Formats: sequence, structure tokens, C-alpha cells
Amino acid sequence: LSRGSSFGKILSLSSFGESHGLALGVVIDGVPPNLDFDESILIEWLEKRAPGHIPGTTQRKESDSPKILSGIFEGKTLGTPIAVVVENKNQRSKDYDSLKTQYRAGHADQTTMQKYGVRDHRGGGRASGRETVARVIAGYFASLIIPTVKVRAFCTKIGPFIISDDSLLDMNTNFAPYGYPDLESSDKIKEFLLNCQKEGESVGGKVVIKATNMLTGLGEPAFDKLKADLAKALLSIGAVTSFSYGLGESFAQVKGSDIAKDRQAFGGIEGGISNGDDIFLTITFKPTSTVGEKAKEGRHDPCIIPRALVVCESMVYLVLADHYLRQNSYREWLNVD
Amino acid sequence: LSRGSSFGKILSLSSFGESHGLALGVVIDGVPPNLDFDESILIEWLEKRAPGHIPGTTQRKESDSPKILSGIFEGKTLGTPIAVVVENKNQRSKDYDSLKTQYRAGHADQTTMQKYGVRDHRGGGRASGRETVARVIAGYFASLIIPTVKVRAFCTKIGPFIISDDSLLDMNTNFAPYGYPDLESSDKIKEFLLNCQKEGESVGGKVVIKATNMLTGLGEPAFDKLKADLAKALLSIGAVTSFSYGLGESFAQVKGSDIAKDRQAFGGIEGGISNGDDIFLTITFKPTSTVGEKAKEGRHDPCIIPRALVVCESMVYLVLADHYLRQNSYREWLNVD
Amino acid sequence: LSRGSSFGKILSLSSFGESHGLALGVVIDGVPPNLDFDESILIEWLEKRAPGHIPGTTQRKESDSPKILSGIFEGKTLGTPIAVVVENKNQRSKDYDSLKTQYRAGHADQTTMQKYGVRDHRGGGRASGRETVARVIAGYFASLIIPTVKVRAFCTKIGPFIISDDSLLDMNTNFAPYGYPDLESSDKIKEFLLNCQKEGESVGGKVVIKATNMLTGLGEPAFDKLKADLAKALLSIGAVTSFSYGLGESFAQVKGSDIAKDRQAFGGIEGGISNGDDIFLTITFKPTSTVGEKAKEGRHDPCIIPRALVVCESMVYLVLADHYLRQNSYREWLNVD
Amino acid sequence: LSRGSSFGKILSLSSFGESHGLALGVVIDGVPPNLDFDESILIEWLEKRAPGHIPGTTQRKESDSPKILSGIFEGKTLGTPIAVVVENKNQRSKDYDSLKTQYRAGHADQTTMQKYGVRDHRGGGRASGRETVARVIAGYFASLIIPTVKVRAFCTKIGPFIISDDSLLDMNTNFAPYGYPDLESSDKIKEFLLNCQKEGESVGGKVVIKATNMLTGLGEPAFDKLKADLAKALLSIGAVTSFSYGLGESFAQVKGSDIAKDRQAFGGIEGGISNGDDIFLTITFKPTSTVGEKAKEGRHDPCIIPRALVVCESMVYLVLADHYLRQNSYREWLNVD
Repeated sequence: LSRGSSFGKILSLSSFGESHGLALGVVIDGVPPNLDFDESILIEWLEKRAPGHIPGTTQRKESDSPKILSGIFEGKTLGTPIAVVVENKNQRSKDYDSLKTQYRAGHADQTTMQKYGVRDHRGGGRASGRETVARVIAGYFASLIIPTVKVRAFCTKIGPFIISDDSLLDMNTNFAPYGYPDLESSDKIKEFLLNCQKEGESVGGKVVIKATNMLTGLGEPAFDKLKADLAKALLSIGAVTSFSYGLGESFAQVKGSDIAKDRQAFGGIEGGISNGDDIFLTITFKPTSTVGEKAKEGRHDPCIIPRALVVCESMVYLVLADHYLRQNSYREWLNVD
Repeated sequence: LSRGSSFGKILSLSSFGESHGLALGVVIDGVPPNLDFDESILIEWLEKRAPGHIPGTTQRKESDSPKILSGIFEGKTLGTPIAVVVENKNQRSKDYDSLKTQYRAGHADQTTMQKYGVRDHRGGGRASGRETVARVIAGYFASLIIPTVKVRAFCTKIGPFIISDDSLLDMNTNFAPYGYPDLESSDKIKEFLLNCQKEGESVGGKVVIKATNMLTGLGEPAFDKLKADLAKALLSIGAVTSFSYGLGESFAQVKGSDIAKDRQAFGGIEGGISNGDDIFLTITFKPTSTVGEKAKEGRHDPCIIPRALVVCESMVYLVLADHYLRQNSYREWLNVD
Repeated sequence: LSRGSSFGKILSLSSFGESHGLALGVVIDGVPPNLDFDESILIEWLEKRAPGHIPGTTQRKESDSPKILSGIFEGKTLGTPIAVVVENKNQRSKDYDSLKTQYRAGHADQTTMQKYGVRDHRGGGRASGRETVARVIAGYFASLIIPTVKVRAFCTKIGPFIISDDSLLDMNTNFAPYGYPDLESSDKIKEFLLNCQKEGESVGGKVVIKATNMLTGLGEPAFDKLKADLAKALLSIGAVTSFSYGLGESFAQVKGSDIAKDRQAFGGIEGGISNGDDIFLTITFKPTSTVGEKAKEGRHDPCIIPRALVVCESMVYLVLADHYLRQNSYREWLNVD
Repeated sequence: LSRGSSFGKILSLSSFGESHGLALGVVIDGVPPNLDFDESILIEWLEKRAPGHIPGTTQRKESDSPKILSGIFEGKTLGTPIAVVVENKNQRSKDYDSLKTQYRAGHADQTTMQKYGVRDHRGGGRASGRETVARVIAGYFASLIIPTVKVRAFCTKIGPFIISDDSLLDMNTNFAPYGYPDLESSDKIKEFLLNCQKEGESVGGKVVIKATNMLTGLGEPAFDKLKADLAKALLSIGAVTSFSYGLGESFAQVKGSDIAKDRQAFGGIEGGISNGDDIFLTITFKPTSTVGEKAKEGRHDPCIIPRALVVCESMVYLVLADHYLRQNSYREWLNVD
């Protein structure tokens, strides 16, 4: 537990694997029994973050075919740990020795040595973005637990492209491939990203995550406030550098009298507990760390957001489903629903 | 555990108590033995958040005298759980029945009923800001574990007052009573807050937290990234609505090439692990929820930041000390320090 | 968590306090809301283990009056942490310096120094039997969660007195004060224990714990098997030296064909999970460690079992209630009850 | 966490896998970095519990070749989670439908349905003894953390064969294949077991586990007493039905004055904490549940003890190594070692 390889209390996700080891994987514990498992939907989820699918992102080919080792039988969850493994096919036989003492800014290279005194220098190791495969797999299973709730992540800023009107964040429109809720900009974004790749440049951006048709009573009053667990969930994604809910940073500008009757200001969370309104979260992504000559090979993402949207959704599903199961323990003693 | 009343893995803080019950308290487990305990310093910490001390904040009188029940013997920690209780003296014999069905916006009143179906309607109950007494007590003990590290919280925005030059955030200057790093503004802030009280208005603001003389190797590569645990720690404070580290939200504006050689951009954390640089965090506080006639009695805070600074410092000390103890488990196997 | 001051996953008990500090206490987290609290019944539970009540046990007077600090409001549980404190009134002003370097066999005196390098030498410190007050308080609340289940502990061996017929273990008879299910022996047991006190001698014995009207499906298939959690719960009581369930040690003597159709052999647990049959546990207590001149003062227990029965019942209630709440999380997905 | 698929606090073992699913596996988290990994020794450990090796036990062929997926690089541990997978080759294409509603006594068949409402009826599922492969793999890694400590399990009773002289339990003699510390009986034990197989009969027995060259200060004073964690570890093995330490059940027969000066009575644990003496544990195994016609096929174990010894050793290594890492967190504050 002290190594922090797990997330969640009743529904828990444990990930393992270095980016250039044999395989990555995840053990999801606490999934209830008798849920219907549909592998094709799981694969849809994984393809959203898979490399090589979105123009202007990395064109590495890593087909992440998940292998279910346990916890599923005849198409249903058993209630036992679900282990899923994804092989690393990207183990090229090249000489990695030059990377041994090369520490990239913003990466875990140096801090891994400071922490462990040893590392797998062939890639990002444990801190690689590849670890997020595990999160998406777990997120899919989490979504089965709260089927009525819908979570969507939107890219609201990528390079110079900005969405400033929240009403564009439509839950029912497919904004692929960039998740940018103005589909007419897609071609320009593509062009922009391809140009970044050509120049070896990278950019950050912003993502808004909404959860609709929310359940009430999720979150705990002291340390596991829903906003606190959501913040941890999203900040545990490598490239995320800020988190806010509801009015977020704008709370510093408004007066108390302005928000006293504006429930939307609170983004669906009061006193740390969901009140049934839509959840509204905003996070920032930093530019990816690989720039310059190395970035021009086309094997890197000039912006990670398009592939990270499903990772964000997964982490939010995990928090909500975990808190739903926690609240379930006590449901028979509630007078209200 | 699923009720989220504890925080921390090796060093853990558990709080209990409703705002209008007999007492609030905290059990701090995992404090090492043989640390020198100085009650007068603990009381200094508590006075920073105590009501009635800072002009323009609540003038309620609650002398929070901590009673150490266990874990200390002859001035030293025993290595056993340290339990500290603070009585609630604010239990006036007035009739609270009118509050039973009155749900205040931005408070936990309604969500507590949604979650539990019952509540102590005399005050904020478990979700009251009074619970942060527990955090300050624990923060004091956490600071004894990592005596070389220094954590300071600065108020960088309160109402119209804004600090935009980070170089003013001097670790060695006492910016009491408002923690605003431009002492010449203190009188104007006081005037501003008193005026807010008079008008029944409230405001939010921003706080920057710095940790200097940092240790390397704190934080874990996957879910317990240092930034993730810090985010959770700070978002678990009731009024906090956003968190960022390093460049934070500004990461959305910069290019990868800009930050590739600017280590400061990462706020002391790379790959989720501390790199020895100063930690740099920014959070937002929302305006306090009580406004209008009720707020004019002078028993409420028009802005919670002045009293919350020591709470923020405490939560950061707790995260850093917990991660220090975690890393301690493995220290003998490191080749580097 | 690594200091092991808590027990239980959803329903958790945290205890604190040294035997000669200001107070002992307990925080019980995870108790559902809306349960009726009856202080007089809690006090009944506590009196069963209180010193000074049972002839032939310690005649120290420690009236353990519990002070509820939180979690209860108008006679009902709030769903928040319940903190209960019991003052130590036994802090006589005598000179304890002689005890500083005196290590008693079978006690934690020496090992506490080996572990912490410091201790409160005035008594057993954290390892004192006084800590079990916390367990009884928590056990009472646990029993409210599973009101249909009945747990009873019987003394089946104390000194030369032995019960060998399990049918005497009647759940509905009060076998106070010794819990020995042959009330005609009570006077002889009393005489025996008084004689032990006179001679400065101590004895151990055996306790059988039964749980009737059991719920099915409690316990988890791998590490948290019901038998494993019960074993830990009971072995965490200082004087307990063995644990078995069902046929227990006798399983070493029988043949597989003998037990294949004897469901009772399994003591209500198959595959680590309760099957609805009565739970049947047997544990051993060692003789109390204080013997000789010191034990003749009448302030020590020649046998701890009479006062420990309610502690055993409490620990079993805690395990069963915790597993009940765990199973509750998943109840809506079960096809069977 | 509430599903109990993990064991240990700093060093933790998570297992997954149904007996007839694709694979079983284990994730070991908290192993320190820079430890030398020797696969051939891991395989030696696994072969001790592998089927088909010991005359008179199951002659099923399951070569358990472990596949290391993560956490090891160039022969050293990385400090990251070590995931190991063992494929299930025993998936015969026979018709399992007859087993769907057939509940075997002493197995988890019925209780699994009571708990989950669904099960993988092709075998023991999650509760199968095959899960102990995971424990042995983890035990091997645990032993690397405390290389000076030596743990050995001896079979002291199997069917009619009994060892009553503890001095025969020599730590340095290889008592394979039955672990019975009187090698002259090996042939008779073999004969006895083969006869059991022929008759479709099964037997239980007893195992003594010793740990020598022990470290002091392991174990925590309240709930995580070393004896409590050892009891849980061993009772979490399916067939184990009793646990005792030191004099164990015999503590019920002796007087306090007898043991006051006999340190050996306490089996190396006082006040729940290791005192440096040898650890001495005794456990009981029940007869395996499969008897009668089905058991005569030679694919079942008439007694599980020979193959379970290494599982017992592994669980004890895990507890000791976990407690060693826990104590490590605080080591710099101890005055004594």
C-alpha cells in the first residue's frame, strides 16, 4: 500500500508494468458479480487512447489487445479479481545504453534514480504514460457499476484553440478524434498538431469533465470528499498539472452573495458530497516533455490530450463507482434515498 | 476506511467530532518515538486558526485548548497513537430547531441528509470548518518528523488585493495576521474585511504554498504521486476549489520548448516524485457561504483564508512526512541517497 | 496503518491510550446512521470486563464510565466517527521509578524497549489489558449492525474445571460471573481463584465462542477468509495463545470420510465463507503473567478469562459486522440472498 | 480492499485467478529495489508445492512455470510491482456441467453461490488450492528482504505418524519429500498415502513452523500483534483449522509460576512483539475434502501437508518481512537497535 500502486477503497485498481518490460497489466478488485462483460466495448475504450489512431499524435503501432486472465466466466463478472494483461510489443532490439544517464526534464528519469537507485532506462519505466492502459481497462469495468451515470471529457483548449462557451459541451455528440466540442475546427487542429510534430514542438491544454445523471450522497465529509478523491484521481495522471471543480479558480473573483443562489457554481458537490447536479471539473495538461530533434520522428505526441480524454473519464468513473459501492454498505439504514 | 475519516498511510491522521457535539479530536498514528514535544508550540499553531484573534474574521471566542490523552510521556513521543481532544465550548443553549430543515447553499446541510438521512442540525456537523483543528494538531506532529523542511502558506489574493510577483513570497518573514506578503496592505485588508462583515458579504482568494529545503525521492510513480496526494490533501479542506503545482494552469499556455530547460516550471515534482527543488502549489478558496443578515452579526468569517493558512501548511506537512516515512522503509536498499 | 492501531475495513475500530496516561479511548468509524444508541446497555457490556466486580479477580476499582464525544445525536448514530473516552483514574501518585528497568516475562516491557527505545514504564503502556475497554465499546456498536446474530463466549476450562460436553453451551442461559456453563461449579471456581490470589498463582484456560442465527456469505475467498479474520481478531487479545474453528485441532485425528457428511465439523465456515450454520470457535488463554509476592496483593487477576469473555464476544461481533457491511456493497447484484 | 485479495501493509501480495481460468497470478508490491533475483531459486520453491512430484500426493501434471511480467530488470528488483503469471494448463475439455449444482462438503462451492450468486463451477474457482502458487512466489521475494532469518515448516503429524520431540525439528536437515523430521519413516508415510489414495480416503495432520535468527521489535502492540498477523496469514490457507504459538493450547494446563521464567513458552513473541527468540508456531490441517470414488483416480491429495509446507513458510516470510519494513520506517528514531 505504501508504494501507491493501487487506487480506490472498495473498488480498487492495481496497475503494474514498466513501459519496456514484458507486459503491463491491471488487477481490478471489488467489481460486483453478475455484470455483463462485453469485450468489444472494452476494446473501443482502449482504442481511444491507443497510439497510431489519431492524426497528429504518435504514429507508433501498439495494438493493445487485452488478455483477460481471471474474474470473468461465460460473459459475466464473478465478483473475484479481474486481471487483464497487455503485452508490450514495442520492445525494439535497439541499443538503449545511451539513455542510461540521460535525464529528461519533466520526466521521472532523475527522480526515479533519486528514489530507487535503479531504473529500467529503456523507457519511462513505471512512470510511463503506457501505465494509463490499466486505468482505461479499470474505468470500463467501473462504468458497468453505475450504468445510469454518464461521464464525458472534452478538450476545451489545445494550442491556440479555445472553447469558452460551456453550452457547447454536449454529452451526446461524438467529438472525435480530438474531443474538441467544435467539430469544424478538427481539420485545423489536425494541421496544427502535424505542424508541431514537424517542428518538434509540443503544447498543453485544458480538459473539462462532466458527469450527468448523477447519484446523490457520494463522497465522505472529511478526507475523502468527492472533490478530494477526484483531484487525486486526475492529478495521478502524469501530465495533469491543475484541478478545479465548479467555478474553480473563478471562485477567487466572485462574491459570496453572487453564488449563494447559484447552485451550478458548486459543480455538483457541496460539503464534499454529490448533490445530484452535474459534476463539472476542469484540469490542465502540460506540454509533453519530448521536444526538439527527437520529437520530429513522429513517434511522440505533440499534445497528449486527444489520447488522454478516455483516461480522464476512466478515473472519474472509478471514483464515482467506488463511492457508490461505499455508500451501498449503509443504504439499508438511510431514511431518504 | 470507507468512511474516509483518516488520511495518510504510514503517518495517519483520524479526526472525529461534530461542531456542536461535546468535543472534536484527532488520533495521530505513526508518529515515531523519541520526538520532543513542546506544547507551547502546538498552541502557537492552533492560535493561527483560532477564531477571535484576527481583525475582520469571526470574533467568536473558542479557546481551543488541546488535551493530550495519549502517546506522550515525559515530554517525548512514545511511538503510540497520539490522541488529542478539544472541547466544544460554543454549545449555546439556544433553540436550534429552526435550522432543522434549512439547507444553506455551498454547505453540507442538504447533502448530509442525502447521504445519511440524519444529521446534527445545530451546526456544520462533521463537515464544519471546526474539524480543521484536528489537521493543525496533526500537522504540528508531522513537522517534527521532517524538521529540516519548511512549509509556508501565503495569501496571494484576497478580495481586490493581489500579489503577482512570486519573489515577494519570502519564507522568513512573518506576514501575520493575513499572510499577505505585502505588509503595507495589512491595514487596508483589515478595513476591507471589516466592511465585508458590515455588509454581510464574503470573498474568496488564492493561496500559494511553498516547501523549501526539500527532500528528494518523495512520492510514488503511479497513483500516490506527490502532486496527487498534495491535491487530495488540500482539496479535502472544505473551502478549497482548485489546486495546481508549478506553472499550474499556465501550462496550458506555454510550449514544450519553453519549459524543457526551466526546472522551476515543475514546482519541485517530476514524474510524481520530489526532485529536491522547492515545492510550489497554488490553491483557490471560495467565498464563505454565510452571507446577508446572518453574516452581519460578526460571528462569521467574510474570508476564511487568514485562518486557513496554517491548515494548508499542516496538510502539506502531513503529506511530506508520510511520504518520508514511506521512503524510509526502503532506504537501506538505495545506492544513492 | 502500519502501526496497527486500527482493526476492520468498513467498520473500523481504532484504539489509543496507555494504561497510566490520562485516558484510553476508541474511535469507531463506519457505524451506519440511524441506529438507536442505549448507553445503559453499553455500560452493561463494560461492566462485564470491569475490575472489582467478580470474586476472585482483581479488586482494583476502576469505574470505566464512557464519555461519548461524537457520532451520536439525540439517541441515534449519525454515521460519523463515534469517539468514546474512558479516563484512567488509577494513576496513583506512587513512585514508579523502580519499574523502569524491570522487564516482566510474558509482558511487552522488554519488547516495547526493543521496538521503540522508549516506554511509559508506569504500567503495561499501550500493551496493557486496559486497551480492551476500547474493544468492548466497539463491540457493542458492532452488535447493533447485525441485531439478529447472537454471539456468546463460554469459559470451558479454568484451572481444573473443564466442560467437555458442548451441549451445555446454551446461548440463552446467563452463566455469570464466570461464564462457566455449569453454574453449580461457580462456588468452587470462586474458591479456587481466591486461593490462587492468596498463593500468588495464576492459571489459563479455554474459551468457546459461538455465533448463532448466522448470516450466509460473510468472509472473502482469499486472504480475508472469515476464519482468518476471526483468528486475527482473537489473537490480537493479549493473553490468547491459540485459535481453532469447528473440529479445530481434532481435524488432525479424523479421516476425510468421517467429516464428508458432518457439516458441523466446519464450524459454520466453508471455503472461508459463512454457510449459515453456527460459528464455533475455541481459543486458549495463558496464565496471567503476574505471579508471586506481587500477585498476592489482590490487585491482579489469577485468571483473566471471566473478564475477557465480553472482549472475545466484541471482537467476533466486529468481524461479523465488518464482513456484513462489506457484503452489503454488492448485495444488489446477487441473484440469491 | 474489502474483497480481501491483498495481504500485507508495506509489503503486499495480491493474488488473482480461478483454478480453471486462463491463468493465476500475483502482484507483489513493496519489494525494495536492488535485490538480486534468481529465477532458479524461485522455481525450486514452486516445485515444493507443485503437483506430481511427491509419491502419494496428486499425480496431476501442472508445470507451474512462472512468467515475470514486471518489476525485475537485468536481474535486480526495481522497487516497482512485481507481477508474475502462471498459466493454467489443466483446462481439460471435458464436460463440467455435472458440477454446476454439485456442492462438495468443506469446499467453497455452496458458500460461493451464497456470496456471489455466480461461480466458475469447473473447479474450486478463487478458493482453489491453486491460489497458493501466488503465495509461494511472494514468499520467495519476502525472503530476500530478511535474508538472515530462516523459516522452516515441519510436518509433525500425518495420519498415524507423530513427532513428539521438538528437538528433532532441525533447521538444517532436508526432510523432503514429506517434511517429516524422521527420515526413516518416509517409506512408511509413502506407503500410507498410496493406500489412502487407493481407498479414496484422506487425512489431516499438524505442522510446526519455526523461524530462527529472529529480528527483535517486529509486531505492533494493539491489533497487528505479530501472533495475530501470523494467525491470519496461516488461517488464510484453505485447509488450516487451528493456530497456536509457543506453548499454545498447553497454556491452558500450566500455572503462571511455571512459565514465569521459561521464555521459550512464549514462542519468541511477548506483548505481540518479537523478542529475538525463535518463533514457534503450530497449526492443524484438516483432511482434504475429496474422498470416495472420485478420490481414487489419483488426481487428488490424500493429505495436503507435504505440498503445503512451502506455502506455510511463505506466509510466515511475508508477515515477517512486512513487519520488518514497517519497523524500518521508524528505525532512525530508536535509541536501541
